Amino acid sequence: MSQWIYFFDLCGTAVFALSGALAAGKHRMDPFGVIVLASVTAIGGGSIRDALIGATPVFWIRDPNYMLVILATVITCLVLVRKPHKLPPRSLSIADALGLALFTVIGAEKALLLELSGMVAVVMGLITGVGGGIIRDLLCRQIPMVLRTEIYATASIVGGICYTLSIFVGMDSMTSMLIAMFSTLIIRLSAIRWHLSLPAFDLKTKRT
Amino acid sequence: MSQWIYFFDLCGTAVFALSGALAAGKHRMDPFGVIVLASVTAIGGGSIRDALIGATPVFWIRDPNYMLVILATVITCLVLVRKPHKLPPRSLSIADALGLALFTVIGAEKALLLELSGMVAVVMGLITGVGGGIIRDLLCRQIPMVLRTEIYATASIVGGICYTLSIFVGMDSMTSMLIAMFSTLIIRLSAIRWHLSLPAFDLKTKRT
Amino acid sequence: MSQWIYFFDLCGTAVFALSGALAAGKHRMDPFGVIVLASVTAIGGGSIRDALIGATPVFWIRDPNYMLVILATVITCLVLVRKPHKLPPRSLSIADALGLALFTVIGAEKALLLELSGMVAVVMGLITGVGGGIIRDLLCRQIPMVLRTEIYATASIVGGICYTLSIFVGMDSMTSMLIAMFSTLIIRLSAIRWHLSLPAFDLKTKRT
Repeated sequence: MSQWIYFFDLCGTAVFALSGALAAGKHRMDPFGVIVLASVTAIGGGSIRDALIGATPVFWIRDPNYMLVILATVITCLVLVRKPHKLPPRSLSIADALGLALFTVIGAEKALLLELSGMVAVVMGLITGVGGGIIRDLLCRQIPMVLRTEIYATASIVGGICYTLSIFVGMDSMTSMLIAMFSTLIIRLSAIRWHLSLPAFDLKTKRT
Repeated sequence: MSQWIYFFDLCGTAVFALSGALAAGKHRMDPFGVIVLASVTAIGGGSIRDALIGATPVFWIRDPNYMLVILATVITCLVLVRKPHKLPPRSLSIADALGLALFTVIGAEKALLLELSGMVAVVMGLITGVGGGIIRDLLCRQIPMVLRTEIYATASIVGGICYTLSIFVGMDSMTSMLIAMFSTLIIRLSAIRWHLSLPAFDLKTKRT
Repeated sequence: MSQWIYFFDLCGTAVFALSGALAAGKHRMDPFGVIVLASVTAIGGGSIRDALIGATPVFWIRDPNYMLVILATVITCLVLVRKPHKLPPRSLSIADALGLALFTVIGAEKALLLELSGMVAVVMGLITGVGGGIIRDLLCRQIPMVLRTEIYATASIVGGICYTLSIFVGMDSMTSMLIAMFSTLIIRLSAIRWHLSLPAFDLKTKRT
């Protein structure tokens, strides 16, 4: 069982490292800069989570596999994805959506393992899911995805609630994870595909 | 006594959550994005403080009331403040000033409780007071208030020094808090009202 | 021996505080804003490092000398560097390069003292070296140096690898430090002087 969680965690790491590397490629960074941005995107959210709950040293210090997955992803990316026109459109958004789904579930699961409350589990899923991407976007001076009108934080919060509720009604961990991941992924991919958004909270005050 | 501190802390949380929600409203974010920005603003500074001093899990993980206050504030804000022209001008700056005063005192007080030095207490007041607002402004791609020429960090540092000195000369905690909060609030509100600023440190080098 | 490491650490603190103060001067901040930016630059990287490895309370809370060095640096800077045309060109870049070299070695050394792996030591050197500067640049809304095409992260990673390898082949700590600092400094200063850069990873996709 827990091997699956570990496998998902490494998958999420690879996918977010890829999204960081792609963002770095759009900014013409050198190979070590690519490694830095890929790492920050892949382990940023989980590092914030572990620092907040006091699970230190944080996960990637205790387990070198995370860094190795990031290095392997970046090297593969640098070697293979040289031809830009071979890159499918929206690849960065889709890699990011996949990472969001995987990391939301991992974050919620780690919180529940530590016997934290359901509300905290949802928040930890959100932090793990969106933290790395926010740091990536801040460093690249992009508007963080979480701030754009398309559904983003919502997808992670819904996934976290799905996971937490599924566990609370007694489902096994694997089923809960799959339900939560699919709900996050479907919401986020639909939002990307059809530019869905919730009604915005709109305050256009002239002066504040 | 300590109930008052707790009450002030929840007030500061509500006020900063409001300032985050108002900032989100200016960027047309969806309701879940509003919750994220309100939370980051309200608990960002205290989370950094707790992570730095090692008081983990950080405060809002141990006590669900902070998250509930944020949720209640955001929902109230979404429901009530629909009509933008009903929002008084400078409401974001004033909410921010009030949060700055409350959180500066809370941060300094927590440091002194842990028997850290007076200098560290002032710094912890500053981190608690300005941390959340800095993250809010970074995410919204605003120039962080702490960087603007108007007196901002100064108000928090003066408040922290007032609190620490008042405690050191033997005043009771409540009086010290009120003195410190009023000094921060008066300095900051005066700066907003009359656009006060200290003489700037101005380096206009052509090349660096 | 360890006095030398401590001395280097305080030197790095002073140098990064100076780079933060110079950046603040370019943004016309008031004296307390200068202190905030100088502090964040000087202790930001090390604070992230200590929070991630769980060495809390972080170093500058336990040892007031770091804050005192920052205060002394800022006051000296405010008093002396009034005349902008007296400031040599590229002074910010050079102060930053020196801080990068000093802090990279300090970060790697602290990780090895805690018996963490060589790979983690290189990463901790990188975080300590570039963390403060990234926060400084984010707050000033500059493109973070680590994102620019000139060699930057590379210099820190090479320095970290040099230090870790030197220790592993049995050199004494002092020699390893000097080797690592000089390699970081020479790489970074050469990159500044001759605008060197590694071949960039360039992805110019029209749509992502």
